[in-house]
Amino acid sequence: MVEKVMQAAALRGAGIDPEYFALAASYMSQRVQGVRWAAARESFAIDYDGAPAELEGLVESLLARLTRSSLRRGGQVLWSRAVAELPARGAWEALVAGGAVRDFGGGHLGYGGPLLDLVEALDGALLGLALRRGAERLQLPQLLPLDLLRRLGVFDHYPQHLFFAAPLRPDLAEIEEFRSRSAAGDPPIASAQAAPRHGLKTSACAPIYPTLQGTDSPGDRLFTTVATCTRHEAGNVRSLERLTEFRMREIVYAGDAAGAEAFRRRCVRVFQDLFEVFDLAGAVVTARDAFFVAGYEQYGTAQLLSGDKLEARAAVPESGAEIAVASFNYHRDYFSKRFAFTVRGAPAATACVGFGLERLAYAVLARHGAGADLSGPLRALAERFDLPPGEAPRGAPGSG
Amino acid sequence: MVEKVMQAAALRGAGIDPEYFALAASYMSQRVQGVRWAAARESFAIDYDGAPAELEGLVESLLARLTRSSLRRGGQVLWSRAVAELPARGAWEALVAGGAVRDFGGGHLGYGGPLLDLVEALDGALLGLALRRGAERLQLPQLLPLDLLRRLGVFDHYPQHLFFAAPLRPDLAEIEEFRSRSAAGDPPIASAQAAPRHGLKTSACAPIYPTLQGTDSPGDRLFTTVATCTRHEAGNVRSLERLTEFRMREIVYAGDAAGAEAFRRRCVRVFQDLFEVFDLAGAVVTARDAFFVAGYEQYGTAQLLSGDKLEARAAVPESGAEIAVASFNYHRDYFSKRFAFTVRGAPAATACVGFGLERLAYAVLARHGAGADLSGPLRALAERFDLPPGEAPRGAPGSG
Repeated sequence: MVEKVMQAAALRGAGIDPEYFALAASYMSQRVQGVRWAAARESFAIDYDGAPAELEGLVESLLARLTRSSLRRGGQVLWSRAVAELPARGAWEALVAGGAVRDFGGGHLGYGGPLLDLVEALDGALLGLALRRGAERLQLPQLLPLDLLRRLGVFDHYPQHLFFAAPLRPDLAEIEEFRSRSAAGDPPIASAQAAPRHGLKTSACAPIYPTLQGTDSPGDRLFTTVATCTRHEAGNVRSLERLTEFRMREIVYAGDAAGAEAFRRRCVRVFQDLFEVFDLAGAVVTARDAFFVAGYEQYGTAQLLSGDKLEARAAVPESGAEIAVASFNYHRDYFSKRFAFTVRGAPAATACVGFGLERLAYAVLARHGAGADLSGPLRALAERFDLPPGEAPRGAPGSG
Repeated sequence: MVEKVMQAAALRGAGIDPEYFALAASYMSQRVQGVRWAAARESFAIDYDGAPAELEGLVESLLARLTRSSLRRGGQVLWSRAVAELPARGAWEALVAGGAVRDFGGGHLGYGGPLLDLVEALDGALLGLALRRGAERLQLPQLLPLDLLRRLGVFDHYPQHLFFAAPLRPDLAEIEEFRSRSAAGDPPIASAQAAPRHGLKTSACAPIYPTLQGTDSPGDRLFTTVATCTRHEAGNVRSLERLTEFRMREIVYAGDAAGAEAFRRRCVRVFQDLFEVFDLAGAVVTARDAFFVAGYEQYGTAQLLSGDKLEARAAVPESGAEIAVASFNYHRDYFSKRFAFTVRGAPAATACVGFGLERLAYAVLARHGAGADLSGPLRALAERFDLPPGEAPRGAPGSG
């Protein structure tokens, strides 16, 4: 195993976002075993199972693809919030030691205790807010046909995130053989698997747009859904900061450009509410999606310059990271053109806001400690969201 | 396309459960395009894309594997409930026509409206019941490592249900090629896919047992979790009666044999509560899992004779089907031996009860109509479950 340390400052100097480079490096080759950030986030190390010269070549090649003048512009800070004292409280270690988190490895976690209580309380408050604004609730499939995922842009924008899913081929003799060879310790998975026809959705809202196909609405529409999202993150998974599977609450707007702008302002206000109520440090910034390498310049730069994507980034004192706990995305007519739906007769402008529930809960617990009493801030959040007092979010500490 | 019609009575006469035969027939060959039940459930047709003689051969072979004397014993009815009048209310058609159900095909549904309201209300009541009995809430991953799924018995018992999941191989050049060939309409999925290392869980509770590995508990434990479960059902998917993806609320008991028996009695009581409160027709019967063909006799018969599996089966007037809306499973020390956990120093006896939320909601809507006011029965359910009056289940009609 060889390791190469990359300095964040040097990457920034070359106009490359170090966070993005670290992510992309995980997909350079199957020999990349992982990417590890140093505690102060000033550098990261790439672990490589091969020759040093090979790794150098891969890094040079990735640098060359990303070093473009148009990328030299970073995100714009729209709003930020500092906190006088940010002690490291060791919330992650406390959750693991206390049994609230059960690590299945590879970014797949089980959890309960104060983490699940907080996830449910936050989701309850966000659901309450959405319903109060007239959103329609939806439960949507997690497996989508590949052709739909392609039309949704996933193949083009984030192919690295996608998990394909396939059962065994429906053939009695083959399944029996699989079963008996499995009992002997040697299941022939690769050869017995059918060709994949589905993939796991990478965002909660993706299935909404196809369901609107062919519809026209006389007025703006809001939808809300919560789902487990799945993104292959190669070696980048880490504590609750980056998971392969995570829960996301989304609210989707469909209307026109002016309505999408108003929705955007309300989303920024919700981000601010969350930061203030939980006394978090962080910022709301313009951002770009984790487009795969070639798409990074093609789409990411336009996104960054337009402000079509905003992220609410919260500080995690115990790791030094700043993590995106929520994001707003303005799609313009990307989905309404692809799936042919209109509002008041015109191609709909759509936008969505997504809240990463485990990340948001983790940012709060990392700020206040895994055992903190959060009933006060949760009540304050319900007030800001104008929720009826008796309607305590399900799962709020003390409510169950 | 050829079709072969099978008579349910003839199969029963040969000691074969017609429902099981229809399920198994879907996995006979890739040429089986589907299995369609006639309205009165007296016969079903197998659609086959091939020669009639081939289909005959496959059917004969499956019959021969399943015709064993030990299978001639059917499930035992422990409790049943009749309803004087069972009009067909066309709930499924009403849900589709009203836009509450959005069909993605292949057993993958999106839904909202009265169906989601009822699913959430039922889940809220069942969660409330579990918490009242002291259950620990858990959120668990949906993707599990293949080796864990194998140890959980999925490879041996239900290999036909399993979806394998794999991302693209982490290789920059290959992913770029995938991306550009996808843009040209020809994504090389099969060749670019990594070897699967994970599979989608087929039940909500499966990940609980491995998390208990190496633990001893001074007393009985209860857990509860809700999750999307995924089972490949080949051509058997139908309306809300059989889905590829469905939500399941589970409550898991870990203790000893006497405690498991008491838990079983409480579960039967809950099944009866559900039937009575919603005025459903149906029965609680001993049952066997949908073990794959060779396992059907090996495991299913023992299960059936022992009463280790119970199903609550509700009538669906509009289709004539009786569907399992909930099931109880007594695992004895199957999981505690495999994952080495004890209660009071002895290998734990475990049992679980699972509620298929869409099926249960559908049975209720099929009985009363998609637009029925269910606030009365839901209040009655909360009373039977001894839930505090103010704690209306989230999502109950009228609460959101």
